[in-house]
Amino acid sequence: MLGVCYYPEHWSEDVWARDAQRMAEMGIRYVRIGEFAWSRIEPRRDHFEWDWLDRAMDVLARHGLKIVLGTPTATPPKWLVDEHPDILPHDEQGQVRGFGSRRHYTFSSETWWRESARIVEAVASRYGEHPALAGWQTDNEYGCHDTALSYGPEDLKAFRRWLRLRYQSPDQLNEAWGSVFWSMEICSFDEVEIPVRTVTEANPAARLDYWRFQSEQIAAYDRMQCEIIRKHSPGRWITHNFMGFVLDFDHWAVGDNLDFASWDSYPIGFVEKFPFSEEERNRWAETSHPDIAPFHHDLYRGVGRGHFWVMEQQPGPVNWAPWNPVPKPGMVRLWTWEALAHGAEVVSYFRWRQVPFAQEQMHAGLNLPEGDELSVGGHEAEQVGRELRKLGDLPASKRAPVAMVFDYQTDWTSRIQPQGKDFRYEELAFRWYEALRRLGLDVDFVRPGEVLDGYALVVVPCLSIVDEKALAALRKTNAKLLVGPRSGSRDRNFRFPENLAPGVLQELTGNRITQVSTLRPGLRENVSGAIKGGAVRWREYLQSDADVLARFAKGDPALTKKGNVYYLACWPDEVLLTSLMRNLAQEARLEFLELPEHIRIRRRGGLTFAFNYGTEAWDVPSGAELILGEKSLKPQEVAIWR
Amino acid sequence: MLGVCYYPEHWSEDVWARDAQRMAEMGIRYVRIGEFAWSRIEPRRDHFEWDWLDRAMDVLARHGLKIVLGTPTATPPKWLVDEHPDILPHDEQGQVRGFGSRRHYTFSSETWWRESARIVEAVASRYGEHPALAGWQTDNEYGCHDTALSYGPEDLKAFRRWLRLRYQSPDQLNEAWGSVFWSMEICSFDEVEIPVRTVTEANPAARLDYWRFQSEQIAAYDRMQCEIIRKHSPGRWITHNFMGFVLDFDHWAVGDNLDFASWDSYPIGFVEKFPFSEEERNRWAETSHPDIAPFHHDLYRGVGRGHFWVMEQQPGPVNWAPWNPVPKPGMVRLWTWEALAHGAEVVSYFRWRQVPFAQEQMHAGLNLPEGDELSVGGHEAEQVGRELRKLGDLPASKRAPVAMVFDYQTDWTSRIQPQGKDFRYEELAFRWYEALRRLGLDVDFVRPGEVLDGYALVVVPCLSIVDEKALAALRKTNAKLLVGPRSGSRDRNFRFPENLAPGVLQELTGNRITQVSTLRPGLRENVSGAIKGGAVRWREYLQSDADVLARFAKGDPALTKKGNVYYLACWPDEVLLTSLMRNLAQEARLEFLELPEHIRIRRRGGLTFAFNYGTEAWDVPSGAELILGEKSLKPQEVAIWR
Amino acid sequence: MLGVCYYPEHWSEDVWARDAQRMAEMGIRYVRIGEFAWSRIEPRRDHFEWDWLDRAMDVLARHGLKIVLGTPTATPPKWLVDEHPDILPHDEQGQVRGFGSRRHYTFSSETWWRESARIVEAVASRYGEHPALAGWQTDNEYGCHDTALSYGPEDLKAFRRWLRLRYQSPDQLNEAWGSVFWSMEICSFDEVEIPVRTVTEANPAARLDYWRFQSEQIAAYDRMQCEIIRKHSPGRWITHNFMGFVLDFDHWAVGDNLDFASWDSYPIGFVEKFPFSEEERNRWAETSHPDIAPFHHDLYRGVGRGHFWVMEQQPGPVNWAPWNPVPKPGMVRLWTWEALAHGAEVVSYFRWRQVPFAQEQMHAGLNLPEGDELSVGGHEAEQVGRELRKLGDLPASKRAPVAMVFDYQTDWTSRIQPQGKDFRYEELAFRWYEALRRLGLDVDFVRPGEVLDGYALVVVPCLSIVDEKALAALRKTNAKLLVGPRSGSRDRNFRFPENLAPGVLQELTGNRITQVSTLRPGLRENVSGAIKGGAVRWREYLQSDADVLARFAKGDPALTKKGNVYYLACWPDEVLLTSLMRNLAQEARLEFLELPEHIRIRRRGGLTFAFNYGTEAWDVPSGAELILGEKSLKPQEVAIWR
Ligand SMILES: [Zn+2]
Ligand SMILES: [Zn+2]
Ligand SMILES: [Zn+2]
Repeated sequence: MLGVCYYPEHWSEDVWARDAQRMAEMGIRYVRIGEFAWSRIEPRRDHFEWDWLDRAMDVLARHGLKIVLGTPTATPPKWLVDEHPDILPHDEQGQVRGFGSRRHYTFSSETWWRESARIVEAVASRYGEHPALAGWQTDNEYGCHDTALSYGPEDLKAFRRWLRLRYQSPDQLNEAWGSVFWSMEICSFDEVEIPVRTVTEANPAARLDYWRFQSEQIAAYDRMQCEIIRKHSPGRWITHNFMGFVLDFDHWAVGDNLDFASWDSYPIGFVEKFPFSEEERNRWAETSHPDIAPFHHDLYRGVGRGHFWVMEQQPGPVNWAPWNPVPKPGMVRLWTWEALAHGAEVVSYFRWRQVPFAQEQMHAGLNLPEGDELSVGGHEAEQVGRELRKLGDLPASKRAPVAMVFDYQTDWTSRIQPQGKDFRYEELAFRWYEALRRLGLDVDFVRPGEVLDGYALVVVPCLSIVDEKALAALRKTNAKLLVGPRSGSRDRNFRFPENLAPGVLQELTGNRITQVSTLRPGLRENVSGAIKGGAVRWREYLQSDADVLARFAKGDPALTKKGNVYYLACWPDEVLLTSLMRNLAQEARLEFLELPEHIRIRRRGGLTFAFNYGTEAWDVPSGAELILGEKSLKPQEVAIWR
Repeated sequence: MLGVCYYPEHWSEDVWARDAQRMAEMGIRYVRIGEFAWSRIEPRRDHFEWDWLDRAMDVLARHGLKIVLGTPTATPPKWLVDEHPDILPHDEQGQVRGFGSRRHYTFSSETWWRESARIVEAVASRYGEHPALAGWQTDNEYGCHDTALSYGPEDLKAFRRWLRLRYQSPDQLNEAWGSVFWSMEICSFDEVEIPVRTVTEANPAARLDYWRFQSEQIAAYDRMQCEIIRKHSPGRWITHNFMGFVLDFDHWAVGDNLDFASWDSYPIGFVEKFPFSEEERNRWAETSHPDIAPFHHDLYRGVGRGHFWVMEQQPGPVNWAPWNPVPKPGMVRLWTWEALAHGAEVVSYFRWRQVPFAQEQMHAGLNLPEGDELSVGGHEAEQVGRELRKLGDLPASKRAPVAMVFDYQTDWTSRIQPQGKDFRYEELAFRWYEALRRLGLDVDFVRPGEVLDGYALVVVPCLSIVDEKALAALRKTNAKLLVGPRSGSRDRNFRFPENLAPGVLQELTGNRITQVSTLRPGLRENVSGAIKGGAVRWREYLQSDADVLARFAKGDPALTKKGNVYYLACWPDEVLLTSLMRNLAQEARLEFLELPEHIRIRRRGGLTFAFNYGTEAWDVPSGAELILGEKSLKPQEVAIWR
Repeated sequence: MLGVCYYPEHWSEDVWARDAQRMAEMGIRYVRIGEFAWSRIEPRRDHFEWDWLDRAMDVLARHGLKIVLGTPTATPPKWLVDEHPDILPHDEQGQVRGFGSRRHYTFSSETWWRESARIVEAVASRYGEHPALAGWQTDNEYGCHDTALSYGPEDLKAFRRWLRLRYQSPDQLNEAWGSVFWSMEICSFDEVEIPVRTVTEANPAARLDYWRFQSEQIAAYDRMQCEIIRKHSPGRWITHNFMGFVLDFDHWAVGDNLDFASWDSYPIGFVEKFPFSEEERNRWAETSHPDIAPFHHDLYRGVGRGHFWVMEQQPGPVNWAPWNPVPKPGMVRLWTWEALAHGAEVVSYFRWRQVPFAQEQMHAGLNLPEGDELSVGGHEAEQVGRELRKLGDLPASKRAPVAMVFDYQTDWTSRIQPQGKDFRYEELAFRWYEALRRLGLDVDFVRPGEVLDGYALVVVPCLSIVDEKALAALRKTNAKLLVGPRSGSRDRNFRFPENLAPGVLQELTGNRITQVSTLRPGLRENVSGAIKGGAVRWREYLQSDADVLARFAKGDPALTKKGNVYYLACWPDEVLLTSLMRNLAQEARLEFLELPEHIRIRRRGGLTFAFNYGTEAWDVPSGAELILGEKSLKPQEVAIWR
């Protein structure tokens, strides 16, 4: 189904009804509103103005539209900031990040929690049972604009409280962090500082705790909002719109609060955000890389325990990337279908009409900035609306044959201690995902510790800290299990495991790592054997009692196998990665298909969807019974078959 | 005529007379002094020491030299800064920019205005009628070292005052800025913050107002100095020495205060400042790019309403660029003649003698650091002195056939909201200028709104906000009028025009822009038709009822014509730009001449000047009646003919 | 002899004895301890816990190991920082550099001096006469992590005190600094500011004084520690472990306090620190560039007046460079022998065992992180131990035939006023050293002013300020003396010499420099004559009455000779530099040998050592009587012959 984001407060009241009617006509069912409207809802403290919002919701309701209401906490108004400047966040340099855009608060401020509860209570109690209300969005894009972590006085206070609970005594903290190193020992929790702005690098265990503390705060803050909403709004669901390529907090934990996950899909903007090569950026500038949106669809389907929405779908060129090209004709439709193929329940465009003022005036909408004129993207959305009506309900998404274990903490540990400047977890996971998808495989994202029943292949690009639950799940699976470099390399206190890496995975993998080499760009080690290619960035020296399937040039193990468990001792270059995934797919007896770089497929129930991101046509498999599209899948086209 | 900058306070008094005599002998007529001498004029508050300056001026006068006196406000002395630290500027991070170099004040400080008035009053009342005094320079290089904008508490106070006057009520400000977006509404002017250090980008309308506010302050501050001077110094002119490639404030507005404009010409230093390619930087490292100085000569001749000086002329290698090569022999002479060709009334070298201490000790002068020994540049200046004596008075500069409408606010809007990272107005305007000059055309710079009578071709590389006066002038001209991309794309409040871009230019151009694509380096769209080449960086999608002269690859209009008005819907690459300007010159029936990249010509009255910036000779047109130089224009040579 | 760094406080007490025994068995004689243990020695103010350290020292003593005790001042504990936050340093932005790593103090804090004296007194009086104590290390790696200079309120106070002593009156300071320029004059020392955070560059003379002030403080601080130690620890030596590629303070002056110098040799980490090309970085990534460690061995042998240790020797991959590859097998042994060849008296590995927690957990040790298992480097160290036992005492190092005059102040002057962005003294000196070593020549580093008797060739890559003593030494030498560009270009107050550069060297060199050109990358001037190649980065225009041996393309002198004195008027590219050094070696009648880029040789007494850093074997000279290694010197191998 389709949805749209709408800002009645941005438009003259006399266009609301016409807008609502046109939405309904083009097949839109859900309208998200309200998430930035605090200053209109409560222009002065305790002075609430509900009338306009009442009227806006009623107009939408009258046209049969369902409403998603956002809590307005992403934009505290100026009067509140002036009353309580302690809600403002601080950057790593200790500088206040001020009022004037959005997300200008720290999760550490007790004042902020109180004020958030107050406004959420007010909105939820007023609209919680509104007949047109389908559900809620908490806040907006947690962590966007680097706002997961803040480094100010309120943060320090909250961090000390958190540490006190976690460690009970300074001695236990000293022991856990290894504070004896460089005389960093403390005698009281009041001696702890935020681990930034030190002369050289700060203690990595302290940094990891700081990250966990902030991440836990986000989940708890979200839970606080959810609890208030649930109290006032029985029978309505709650979601949050996550961002793309933000790994600063544990999305799995926030997902626990929600009925399902949703995310904001800006496939072209994200091309400039991920560390692609310049050549890749140019190739995908006007279509997006074919795995960017799917990677997040699959991730957030996991976070949503099988359910997700795209809450904001890019409808044309946006405004916030370094360059913002117009998407190739057809791409807005393609992205919408790609989301649906991955199981999205609703795809909601951001936004109904381009706003002619303020920060996002260059961000396209389904309509041009003035009047009732559909944009290119608007016409494509309209087409999807027609196609959806014609196809009827889509079947449910099934479990994929492949699972990727995805872990936020691993991102934090490798950013805290990269050892090699270009070891980026996010990149590793994305490249493994891409390699699987190039084989036409569907992938589920699973949380460390989640039961792995039913998968033929489980891949763990890296899991730096393996807790008991995660270990149990990995031990239990019968799937072919591929474990990547650096896994199990730290214990929960960011220490070397006593038995050396991969720590608790030693028995499972049959390996013990005695040395690690990080390789500057330009250095590469050859790998040959069952798989062939090169190791770059990171390689390990193993002692192994497993079978050695591939070796580095001097004979050391590069890929090992013990029972169903494979271990890769390096960062694979593209050739090695392709070879590896093909090999694993064969070992797992998966049917696969080597796709060109611009073609992707995905199944939903009994349907198979194909997408062409490139410039050359591709023939769908013979025997496909097409229900949308043609045998020859043209550039920017979609096909669906049984 | 020639001039020189002199610092009697840097030299022992016994060399003053010899220096003055040698100046006079080499044909120097004007000597600028005093602009950094506050600590010598007023070493303690209200304790003035005039004697040394009296004597210095008398020495110069005795040798027949005319004096240009600078107000010393670019360097407030330490005692004043310690008394009133609130005069210091703040950078974008909110950090004080301290004492110890120059330009350490903010235009927002009321204290600073009072103190400036006091010292200008003191100097002007003492020397206003000195018989040798020709005129005044206010301050020194406004805006240099990023000093046009400051971001401190004094700035915030002044900004709020300025907004109060402009908007009368918070509601009107909210409406103008679109503050409803992201709950940015304010209830009182005291709630306004400086639009920096926000979590993500600040409101563009607020940023534009902040820029206008600071720019207006500069013009008002300069006017305050001018008024004091005029009161005490009847019959003397006033100028200010502008910098090159500084667009942070509206030079046209400061020009309104002045009798004529002047500028500081450092052709080689500026090669590293403009975004040239590395290849261009290497090619022009020792001569400068042949359009850098001319671009500014023409601009400041415009700002000076037909009159300008070069107040500081580079006399050899300087000290402040990342690299500071020795200019090729002949270049100091060439630059001097180039300035004169463009209508400069005086070319004044910076400085008489290289100073052997402090920050600029590696900056060449006409003399070596010690003694009376001319530098290479000094000898070349001497030669120009001889040549000028021989040629006699130069004819007056006439109106050029081509006008370029040049607008500072357009620079601010595109820096506030680039949309594509490499959309730089300054670069666009420079490249258009270069293309015209490669056709041997003379160019005038005109202010938006200025009457365009008498031009055959008017080019507007970009004019983001078109006010009524500007529109009227563009409507009225019979010249061929070329309007560039992004023109008319915003209204005065930094909003989309209601009818979409080009807003008030829709009728004139026949176009309406529905989409904009910004293209990362590596992307290029082909253009063909009456002009051929590529679009890079920026392209628009037009609905047009004008004639379409050239199209993008898929058929959309790239160049349109409606009556005398041409509209270019992209950033042209070099090939397209050359093709465009040749085409326009033909349409305007201009005589032109395709010059090699290293040759430039310019007319002054009935004389034509030619300059060779390259390594190969060039033959002057047959029939030229040479009054300086030779038929074969050698590298680094100058020719003048009738 | 061999040593090792050990941290008993990091390990359970029951492993101490086994560790000590294994050290002794592998030939280790010295153990450095204690330098980061303040929080264990004095966990609360005036509450000392000596027992553990008593026991640790006794265990080492019992196994026949000699102890080097470090004063623990590099890591003031948290309770002290909280009591006296004024000891913390400030960065150039004025931001506090906080607790949480190491070196978090400023040398300007009087509190810090008092507290340092207190803890040094405590440690020295307790252990000064411990029978196993061989000597002392003061603090740890002065200047590491950019800690030589601090920019806070304590620094300003101390700077004003220092200036008062140096200049006596504000007028003398104004005169020395040329403060009249830009009205920078002061009336009282209390008006002086730290020369940072100015609007444009600060006064270079002020900056140089600030650097000298901070450098002098470091030497004085170190002297304070030494005096306390000497009082309590008769008969024990004192050293300090200097870092590599740190030029921020005058190491010669600190050396004056010490019995000998030592340094911390991390050959691979330093590859990323020096401005090598990417190609060089890749080539030497796993072995280090063959001159990095030797350059420092020779430098610190000079600083130690003929005596030096390697206090920390890289034993495998480290953790702190952008990339940290595993060294090629054999390199730990090779580096150890290279140090010994250059005269090291002890090579002490950092560290005994890899620590499994805190910041340096990825830094290899001689043992793996847990247990008693030697690492690869540990095995190589063991091998050196065996070889040393077999070879017996090594002969003393003799005076080298070539001296390089090396000066820290020259580094500061060129960083303060680069004039060309890539004029880096450190790089110039290193490249000259490399060129000499490629000829198989041994090199001594000498301090400006040191007597130069006995050298055949003296090279001065650059000596910006030549004081009387330095001039006398250069005048007196009979050696061939090569003086490089920019020498003598400033007087002690950072002024141009009155007679222009090279100032006091004019008579000696026969040259006078009238212009300087700095050349951006891509520009190059041809040099031909007795030497051939190119000038890059920097070239001078000379008036010369010396013999001109080589000239620039237009005929100006590039290399001159007056008596025994050669002057090079440019930064030589690799070709010119090679040609120059070969020419000079011939003029000095030195025997030399053109070595491949990966081979280096070095003599110690009657022995010659050869080292292979590359991938191809090299034959040692015929007639060599080998006492270690083989005729064919394999990659990563060492040979020693008589
Ligand atoms: Zn969004
Ligand atoms: Zn200037
Ligand atoms: Zn160290």
